[in-house]
Amino acid sequence: MDFTYLDKINSPDDLKRICREDPKAAEIIAEELRKYIIEVVITNGGHLASNLGAIEITLALHLVFDNPSIVFDVGHQSYAHKIITGRFDDFPTLRKKDGISGFPKRSESTYDAFNTGHAGTSVSSVLGIARAKAAKGDTTPSIAVIGDGSMTSGMVFEALNDAGQSRLPIIIVLNDNAMAISQTVGALGRHLTKLRTSTGYLTFKAKTHSALRKIPVLGNALIYIIEKLKNALKYLLLPNVIFENMGLAYIGAVKGHDTEAICKALEIAKESERPVVVHVKTKKGKGYSPAEKDAEKYHGVSASGKKAAKTSNSKIVGETLCALAAEDEDIIAVTAAMPSGTGLIPFSKQFPKRFYDVGIAEEHAVTMAAGMATHGLKPFVAIYSTFLQRAYDQILHDVCLQNLPVVFGVDRAGLVGDDGETHQGVYDIAYLSTMPNLCIMSPSTYDELHAMIALSFDVNRPCAIRYNRGLLPEKPLTHAVEFGKWEVLREISDVCIIGTGRLTERALRIAEKLRAGAVNARFINPADYTVLAEIKQKSRIVITLEDGIVQGGFGAKITQLLCPHGIRVYNFGVPMRPIPHASVDEQDKMCGIDEEGLVQRISEIIGQLTIHD
Amino acid sequence: MDFTYLDKINSPDDLKRICREDPKAAEIIAEELRKYIIEVVITNGGHLASNLGAIEITLALHLVFDNPSIVFDVGHQSYAHKIITGRFDDFPTLRKKDGISGFPKRSESTYDAFNTGHAGTSVSSVLGIARAKAAKGDTTPSIAVIGDGSMTSGMVFEALNDAGQSRLPIIIVLNDNAMAISQTVGALGRHLTKLRTSTGYLTFKAKTHSALRKIPVLGNALIYIIEKLKNALKYLLLPNVIFENMGLAYIGAVKGHDTEAICKALEIAKESERPVVVHVKTKKGKGYSPAEKDAEKYHGVSASGKKAAKTSNSKIVGETLCALAAEDEDIIAVTAAMPSGTGLIPFSKQFPKRFYDVGIAEEHAVTMAAGMATHGLKPFVAIYSTFLQRAYDQILHDVCLQNLPVVFGVDRAGLVGDDGETHQGVYDIAYLSTMPNLCIMSPSTYDELHAMIALSFDVNRPCAIRYNRGLLPEKPLTHAVEFGKWEVLREISDVCIIGTGRLTERALRIAEKLRAGAVNARFINPADYTVLAEIKQKSRIVITLEDGIVQGGFGAKITQLLCPHGIRVYNFGVPMRPIPHASVDEQDKMCGIDEEGLVQRISEIIGQLTIHD
Repeated sequence: MDFTYLDKINSPDDLKRICREDPKAAEIIAEELRKYIIEVVITNGGHLASNLGAIEITLALHLVFDNPSIVFDVGHQSYAHKIITGRFDDFPTLRKKDGISGFPKRSESTYDAFNTGHAGTSVSSVLGIARAKAAKGDTTPSIAVIGDGSMTSGMVFEALNDAGQSRLPIIIVLNDNAMAISQTVGALGRHLTKLRTSTGYLTFKAKTHSALRKIPVLGNALIYIIEKLKNALKYLLLPNVIFENMGLAYIGAVKGHDTEAICKALEIAKESERPVVVHVKTKKGKGYSPAEKDAEKYHGVSASGKKAAKTSNSKIVGETLCALAAEDEDIIAVTAAMPSGTGLIPFSKQFPKRFYDVGIAEEHAVTMAAGMATHGLKPFVAIYSTFLQRAYDQILHDVCLQNLPVVFGVDRAGLVGDDGETHQGVYDIAYLSTMPNLCIMSPSTYDELHAMIALSFDVNRPCAIRYNRGLLPEKPLTHAVEFGKWEVLREISDVCIIGTGRLTERALRIAEKLRAGAVNARFINPADYTVLAEIKQKSRIVITLEDGIVQGGFGAKITQLLCPHGIRVYNFGVPMRPIPHASVDEQDKMCGIDEEGLVQRISEIIGQLTIHD
Repeated sequence: MDFTYLDKINSPDDLKRICREDPKAAEIIAEELRKYIIEVVITNGGHLASNLGAIEITLALHLVFDNPSIVFDVGHQSYAHKIITGRFDDFPTLRKKDGISGFPKRSESTYDAFNTGHAGTSVSSVLGIARAKAAKGDTTPSIAVIGDGSMTSGMVFEALNDAGQSRLPIIIVLNDNAMAISQTVGALGRHLTKLRTSTGYLTFKAKTHSALRKIPVLGNALIYIIEKLKNALKYLLLPNVIFENMGLAYIGAVKGHDTEAICKALEIAKESERPVVVHVKTKKGKGYSPAEKDAEKYHGVSASGKKAAKTSNSKIVGETLCALAAEDEDIIAVTAAMPSGTGLIPFSKQFPKRFYDVGIAEEHAVTMAAGMATHGLKPFVAIYSTFLQRAYDQILHDVCLQNLPVVFGVDRAGLVGDDGETHQGVYDIAYLSTMPNLCIMSPSTYDELHAMIALSFDVNRPCAIRYNRGLLPEKPLTHAVEFGKWEVLREISDVCIIGTGRLTERALRIAEKLRAGAVNARFINPADYTVLAEIKQKSRIVITLEDGIVQGGFGAKITQLLCPHGIRVYNFGVPMRPIPHASVDEQDKMCGIDEEGLVQRISEIIGQLTIHD
C-alpha cells in the first residue's frame, strides 16, 4: 500500500507536525487509516465497524492533547490509536500470536493507558487515573472514549455519579453511533436519540467556535457563558438533562467524521473546570460500505473477511430454543446486547414479545430473569462466558441461593482465540462451581447441546450450559442425555481419562492411543457418582481435561472426590495466567492441552508411576 | 407487651378491616410496630433504624393493594411487613437458629415475593415479576421498595433504563432517608437533596389529593393532567428530571411517616399507565431517639442492643491503615458505603482527601482503584466479602489481568452468623482463587492481620486479605509474615492438619489432641511449596480446614497439588448449600467444622486408614 502520510507517523508528534504543515493532512490521514485498517482486518479478522467509526475522534484527541491518558471503553475502536502511536509497522500482526492485540495493552505501549475488553470500565478507570494524577499535581486531562452502547452499563452510571461531584479535568467522549453491539435499548437510548436529532447543536456549535477563535484567551469565561446560555435554553434546545443533572458539563452533538469540528469541541472541553461530556455523532463502519450497511454483521470480522461458518453452537442454541418455545409459551429469551452473537435473532423475530435484549447490562438481565422465574416463566439467558462474569453476584445471590429455574446459555466458553486475555471464557467452570443448586452442563457434541437445552427446562432448578465458540462435532447420541449422568466412552481401567466439553473428543483419542478408559463428563455439577464409584474400584490414575482454568475447575472437584480414596488424579486445563491472543489451536498448545502435548505428558505420568510401583 | 391491635393482625386483611373500623388505627398500629420491633431487636440484634423508617410505607402498601408483589431492596426494612403478614407470633425468633430470617424469604411466606440481602436487586426483579405477570394476564402492580442508598447501585440504573421503556404497572417506592448505610454520595445524592428540599410538593400533594377524592372515577384523566402540569412546571417546581428522562412517572415527595399521605400517593400511582416512582421522605430510626440521632450506629444492632465489642478486625485494619498512610502518602482508602463497618471512619477523618466512599457501587470502586494504581497510588479497597461478589468481573478483568497493585480488605469473610444465607462470606476463597496474579492472605491472629496489611503495600501486585467478622486472637508473631510463607505450628508427621484464617487455632488444638502435625496457611495464594515439599515427604494424610466453601476453595488447591503424590487429602469447610441464619458457633456445627465434630471425623479417617493399611 502506498501512503502519503500514514507511514511517516511514528508518534502523535509526527501527526501534529504533518497537520500543521498541511491543512488537508487530517483528512488524508483519516482516509489512509481507513484503507489500512480495512486491509488488515479483512486479512486478520478483528473489529471493523467500530474502528472505522472512531478514526476522526482518535486523530482529534492526539492533535489537541499531548500524550493524554486515553481509556478506550471496550477497546474495540483503538486501531487508529495504535497505528499513530508507533505501531504502524506492527499493525499487520494484529491479533496474531506474538503480534499486537486487538485491544489496548499497557504492556504494548505507554500510549495505552488502561487495558480494556469488557464494556463500561472507562469512566471508572479514568476517574481513578484523574484522582491519581491530581494527587501528584498533574492537571492534564484524562479521557474516556465510550460508545452509546456502553452507556447502558450500570458501572458507567456508578462512575458518572462519582465523577459528577469531582472537579477533575475529565473528558468523556461519547462516541454515539446509535448502535451498541446490536442496538441501544431502553430509555437512555431514546434520550440519546433526542440529543442526536436535536437541531440546536448546529447553531450552538457554529457560534461557539467562531467566538472561541476570536478570543481564545477568554476560554474559561466563554465556557461559563455558554453554560449559562445552555442552562437557560437547555430544556428548549438540548435535552441533555441527564448529564447536567449528574453534574457533568455537556458539549454536543458534534459531527464525528469531521476532525476539525471534534478538535474545536475538545478545545472547549479542555477549558472546562468540571468533568465534561463531548457528544460525538459517528457512523459505525464509516467508509466501508458493507460495514456501514450492516454494522452488526461487521462488528467482529473473522479472518476470512466474512462472518464465520454458517452453523455454530450459538446458531444451534437459537434454533433449539425456537423449537422448544413453539411448544412452551413460558420459554423466554434474554440477552445483554448479544442477540446476534448468541444466535437469538431468529427467536427475536419469531417471538418478539418473549425476547428481551436489555443492553449491556448483564447484572440486570440475570436478576430480571430471576424475577420472571418466580412467576412461572422459563427464562433462557444467553451471555458470553466472559461477560457473564459481570453477573457473578446476581447468579449466586438472586438465582442460585433462591434455587430459581433460570437457564444460562454460557456462550464462547473456553479459549476464544484472537480476542485474547480479556475475552477468554476460561473462568466459568470455576466460578459457576461455587454456586449452590446450579446444574452445570458441558456438551461435547452438537447433539448433546441440543438435548441439554431441552433438559434444562425440565429440571426446575438453575442450569448453566457452557459451549465453546465454533461448532461441536455432530455425532448422534449413543446414550440419551440424563440429568447427572456421564457417558463411558471406553471401558474404565487402570488409567481413566475424563474429558468434558470440547476436550471430550480429544480425551477419547488419547485414551485409545494409551489404551486407557475414557469418560464424557456431560455434567460438571452434579457429578455422576455411579461412574465415579466404578472409577474408584478400577482406576489407579485419573486424568481430567477441561477447557478452563485448572484452579477450582472441573478437575479440582473430581480430585477432591477421588483423592481420599488413594487415586492419583492429574488435572489438565488452562493454567493460572492470562492467555494472550492467538488461534485456539495455538492457545491449546500454550496451555499444554493440545493432543500431542497431552499424550506426552500423560505417557510420562503413567510411565513414572509404573516404575515407582 | 400489651397491644390494642397488633396482636390481632394475622394478615393484611385484618389490617384493612381494623383500619376501616377505626380511622385512628393506622397510627396506633404504627406505634405498636415500633415498640415491638425495638423490643425484639434490642434483644436479638438486627436492623433497627431501617425498619423503623419503613413502617408507614409498609402499612400503606398493604392498605392500598391486595397481596401485591413487594420486593424490599436489601430487605433490611421488612420487619413490619413480616409482622403483619402472619409472623407476629414468630417475630421474637428473629435471626435465631430455626427462627424467622432478618430478610425476606420466599420459603417463609408467600407474602415474600423475592429474597433479598444485597442492594440494588429490587427494580430488576420487580420488572421480571411484572413481565411474568403480564405474560399470564395478571395486571396487578409489582412494587419495589428501595432506599436512596441503593439508588447509587449500577444495576438499579440498568433496571430503570429497561423499566422506563416498558408500559407495565410497576411502582417504585423510593424510601428516601437521606442516608444509605452511611450517607448517599455523588451527584444523584445531590439531585435527591434538591427533590427533598423542594417546597413545591406540598401544594402539589394537597391539590392532587382533594381533586382525586372528589372525582375518583377520573383517576386516569387526572394523572394525565397532573403529569401535563408537572411537565410544564417541573423545571421550576420539581427537579425530578432524571426519573422523567428515564421514562418513569414521578410522584413526590410524600411525607414518609404519614400513612394516609402515602396511601393517597399510592392511589395515584395505581392509576399510572407507565412505571412510576413514588418518592417518600422518611427518617431512619423514626421513633427511637438513639437511632434517630445516630442512624448509622443503629443500622445494625448486635444482640446486646449495643454495637459489638470495642475492638474488631475491622478496627485493626482501620488503625493499621492510618499508621501506614501517615508514612506513605500514596496510600488511599476506598469503600462502597461501608466506611463504619470496615473500620475506615478514623482514616476518613485523618485523611479526608485520600478517602473515597463511592456509595453502593462496588464495581466502580474496584475499577476506579485499578485506575489509581496505574498512576502510582496504592489503593486499599475495603468491602465485605459478600458484597465484593458484585465486583468479581472488575477484580479479574481490571485488576488481576493487568496485575495492578490494588489491595482488597475482604471484611466479614467466612460465616457471618445471624444475617444468614445472603450475607455469608464463604465464597471469596473460591472466587478469588480463580484470578491470576492475585495474592490471597488469610490471617489467623490479630498480629498477622496487622503485618499482612503492611506487606500488601510492598509486594507490588494485587492482594486480598480476608478476615472474619469479630476479632482474631491476639498472639505475638513467632515467625515474621513473609510473602508466600506458611508457619509450621506443630511438627509435620504422618497426619498433617492445615488450617487457614479463623480455623487455624482450631487446627492446632485438634492436631494436639490427635498428635498430628499442624500448619498455619497464612497464604492461600501462593502456597508455600517448601512446606508442601516437607508434607509430601512426611505425611500420608492431610486435612485442610477453611471458613469457606469446600468446592474450589483452599483445600481444593492443596488437594490438586498433593493428590498426584499419593497423599490422601480431606477437605473440611462449608458445604455447597446455603447456610441459614444462626450464631457462628451454630453455623460451624451445621457445617461440621466445629472442634468436636472435626475431632470425631478426623479420628475416623485416621482410624479407617490405619485398619486398611
